[in-house]
Amino acid sequence: MVTLQALLQAKEKLNPHIIETPVLRMEILDALMGCKVYLKLENIQRTNSFKIRGALNKMLSMAPEELKNGVVAASSGNHGKGVAFVAKLLGVKATIVVPDTTPNIKVEGIQSYGAEIVKCPYEKRHEVAGKLSRDYGYALIHPYDDEAIIAGQGTIGLELIEQLPEVNQVVVPIGGGGLIGGTATAIKLMAPHVKVIGVEPACMPRYTKSLEAGERVLLQPAHSIADAILTLQPGAANFPIVQKYVDHIVTAPEDEIPDGSTTLLKTGKIVAEFSSAIVLAAALHGRLPVKAEDRVCFVISGGNIDPADIIRQMP
Amino acid sequence: MVTLQALLQAKEKLNPHIIETPVLRMEILDALMGCKVYLKLENIQRTNSFKIRGALNKMLSMAPEELKNGVVAASSGNHGKGVAFVAKLLGVKATIVVPDTTPNIKVEGIQSYGAEIVKCPYEKRHEVAGKLSRDYGYALIHPYDDEAIIAGQGTIGLELIEQLPEVNQVVVPIGGGGLIGGTATAIKLMAPHVKVIGVEPACMPRYTKSLEAGERVLLQPAHSIADAILTLQPGAANFPIVQKYVDHIVTAPEDEIPDGSTTLLKTGKIVAEFSSAIVLAAALHGRLPVKAEDRVCFVISGGNIDPADIIRQMP
Repeated sequence: MVTLQALLQAKEKLNPHIIETPVLRMEILDALMGCKVYLKLENIQRTNSFKIRGALNKMLSMAPEELKNGVVAASSGNHGKGVAFVAKLLGVKATIVVPDTTPNIKVEGIQSYGAEIVKCPYEKRHEVAGKLSRDYGYALIHPYDDEAIIAGQGTIGLELIEQLPEVNQVVVPIGGGGLIGGTATAIKLMAPHVKVIGVEPACMPRYTKSLEAGERVLLQPAHSIADAILTLQPGAANFPIVQKYVDHIVTAPEDEIPDGSTTLLKTGKIVAEFSSAIVLAAALHGRLPVKAEDRVCFVISGGNIDPADIIRQMP
Repeated sequence: MVTLQALLQAKEKLNPHIIETPVLRMEILDALMGCKVYLKLENIQRTNSFKIRGALNKMLSMAPEELKNGVVAASSGNHGKGVAFVAKLLGVKATIVVPDTTPNIKVEGIQSYGAEIVKCPYEKRHEVAGKLSRDYGYALIHPYDDEAIIAGQGTIGLELIEQLPEVNQVVVPIGGGGLIGGTATAIKLMAPHVKVIGVEPACMPRYTKSLEAGERVLLQPAHSIADAILTLQPGAANFPIVQKYVDHIVTAPEDEIPDGSTTLLKTGKIVAEFSSAIVLAAALHGRLPVKAEDRVCFVISGGNIDPADIIRQMP
C-alpha cells in the first residue's frame, strides 16, 4: 500500500517538472451532469495526460545503473508518452510497445520525444515489453502495477484536496488502477469524507467483477472506444487499494461513452479523450450517485485525441 | 463615459443570470506565448460568448413599455444569441439581422432561443435592423455603441481584477469596441497599473486608423476569418473610452489569425473562435509587448465555432 509519506515525497520530486493542473469550475454543464461540475484538467498537463506523473516518480527514484541500458514500457499511448518524456529528460533510451490500434496522435506524441515505437496486438503488449526488457537489459516501467507509479499518479489527489477543499466527490476513469489507486489513497488519507468513484467501460468491467469475486479476475479482450482503459485485469498492487479506498465502481455502456467527449467539446469547449470523459458520460446518463448540490470533481485524465474523432461521434 | 457605479450596478443586475467565468491558468502555452498565460473563459459563458452580458444589462434596464413590440439587433452572431437569450428570458419577441456569411452554428444558436433570423449583406446589417425597428416598433439593441451594453461587457473587467489581482496585462479582441471599452474602463478604474491591449484584424484596422486620425474613421468592407470583429468604424460611445483607457492596439495579419485557435485547440485543448483567439495569435507571433514573467490574461470572448473549422486551418 502507498503511504502518505510516499505521496508527499512524490509531490516534491515531481514539482519542478510537471504542471499543477488547474481545477476548472464548469457551471455550463451543471444541469446536464446533475451536480456542480469541476474538472481537474490533466489534459493540459505536460504530454497532455496524467501519466507523466507516475513515469517521473518511478524513473527519478531509480539508480543511474538501473537506467543505463534504457527503459521499455507497454502502453496504450499515454504512459508511453510520459515515459518517453522522462527518458528524454534523463538522457536515456526509451522503447515503447503499443497496441497496433493506438491512435496516430499518441504514436506521434511518443516519437516527438525521440522514443522508439514497437507495435503488437494489444493483449500481447506486456509480454513483448517483458521480452525486450530481458533481451536488451531495458528497465521495465510498468504503466500501473508499481507503487512508485501509483504514488506519482496520487499527487493528483494531493493537489485536488488543496485546490478544492470543499469537494464532495471525485470521479476517476479506471484502467489498470494506477490513477484511481493513487488518487483514492491521497484523498482518503487527507479527506476521508470525500467519496471516490471509478468509471470503467461496461465491456471491460475488470474492477466490478474482481470486487465481486474478491480477487483479481482476468477478462477476455474486448473492443471499446475508450482505448486507454482496456486493461484485462486489475494490477496486483492496485487491487487492494481500490478494495480499501474506492467507494463505488460504475460501468459505462459502450453506446454512452462517446457522449462524454462530445458534450464536453460541444458545450464545455474542451477536448478530452473518450477514456477520460467517460466520467462525464456516466454523469450525463445518471449513473453516478450525485445530487444537484454536490461539488463533484471529474478527473479529465488526458487530451491526446484528434478532435475530428470526437466530431465524428456527435449525435 | 461609463462610470464605476454603472459597472457595479451592471454586475449586480447580471449576477443571477450569467456565469462568473473562470480564469484558467494555461501553463502549457507559456513558452509559446512568451508570458504567463491566463485565459478568461467567456467561451463557457451562457450562450458561449460574452455578448449576453451587454444584452442583459441593456434589456434589464428598459421599461416593459419599450420592449412590448419586441427587439431587433444587428449582429455577426454572438450579440444576436445574447439578445435572443435575454428576449426569451423576458418573454419578448426577438428579430436578429445577421450577415449572410454568418456561420451556421451561430444562426442555429440564435434560433435555439426562439428568435427570428433575417439575413443580409454584412455591411447592410445595421441599416436593415434600423428599418425593422422603425417599421415594426421593435426596440433596437445595438451590439456595442451604447453605454448600457458597454457597462455590461465591462463586468468582465470587474470579475477579472477580483479573480486575478496579480494580473499585469489584459489582452482583448476589438470589433466595435464594446468589450474592450467596458473591460478597459473597469480595469483602469479598479487597477490603473494593469495594461490593456486590444487586437484587431490587420485587414480591418478601424481603431488603429482612428486613433492615428484622432477621429472615428470609416473603413471599406473587407473579408477576414475573424468574422465576429469586422465592424467598419469605432462606435461613437466606444471611441473616447478606447482613446482614454487602452494602452496599445495591435493588428494581426490575416495569415496569422488562424494560429490562435489552432494552437489553443491542439495544445491547450480548448475551442475558441478565430475572432477570440486572435489575442493568442498576436502573442504567438511576438506582436504583444509582453515579457516572460508578465501575468497576461487573454479574454477568450467566444466559442461559437464548429471545431472542424479550426481543424481545417491546422498547418
